[in-house]
Amino acid sequence: MAHHSRICKVVIDVPETDHERTVDFWGAATGAPTAVVPGSPEYTSASLHSPRMWLYIQRLDEGGDGPRVHLDIHTDDLEAEVARLERLGAARVRKVHSWWVMRDPAGLLFCVIPHPPGNLDDSNARRWE
Amino acid sequence: MAHHSRICKVVIDVPETDHERTVDFWGAATGAPTAVVPGSPEYTSASLHSPRMWLYIQRLDEGGDGPRVHLDIHTDDLEAEVARLERLGAARVRKVHSWWVMRDPAGLLFCVIPHPPGNLDDSNARRWE
Repeated sequence: MAHHSRICKVVIDVPETDHERTVDFWGAATGAPTAVVPGSPEYTSASLHSPRMWLYIQRLDEGGDGPRVHLDIHTDDLEAEVARLERLGAARVRKVHSWWVMRDPAGLLFCVIPHPPGNLDDSNARRWE
Repeated sequence: MAHHSRICKVVIDVPETDHERTVDFWGAATGAPTAVVPGSPEYTSASLHSPRMWLYIQRLDEGGDGPRVHLDIHTDDLEAEVARLERLGAARVRKVHSWWVMRDPAGLLFCVIPHPPGNLDDSNARRWE
């Protein structure tokens, strides 16, 4: 069965000590209104001047490695998308809540995130048969 | 005088040893046609499903630190934009060709790039007075 995916987010990961000033900086730098993600206070979102792409700032737990920037691929079929990316050379690192952290061939982390059903389609995402 | 800026690119920086397979991976992962940037063979571009946002893969020189992901802010007034970002807490790191490498408050590198005149306006970028 076909599924869809798209890069939906760029995420700036920073330790707690840098979190507040990083949110303030990138909010002011982009001019985008920022908002704490409801139910997930470790994430702050900012909508960019690029439809279908968001900037998130994530507050890392103590001891987490960072700071860094990573990409989020959203999909309507998590298992199919993760398997597809594995065939392309990525590796599963760990499952976190509902998503997978993966590593690209150069070792960079990225996430594969389940998108609400019905929101990704041929008009706004890539279809994989 | 007013100027404009917008985050235009996400750049994946990888050392030469990982460059080719990183380009292949992200091209296949996103399904975006990739193209070496004319005149700058160290950059490969991929257009995303998000208008006004591109994914670039950069081949780092030997000894460069990486791999990493960074953001590029494009602007129609480099000096005004860099000065604005400095006032917000970023620091200049070095000038490279026509652009500035800067560091955000958490220490993450990003670039501020001159955009061709007349291409950024109130409809597609943020205006700073």
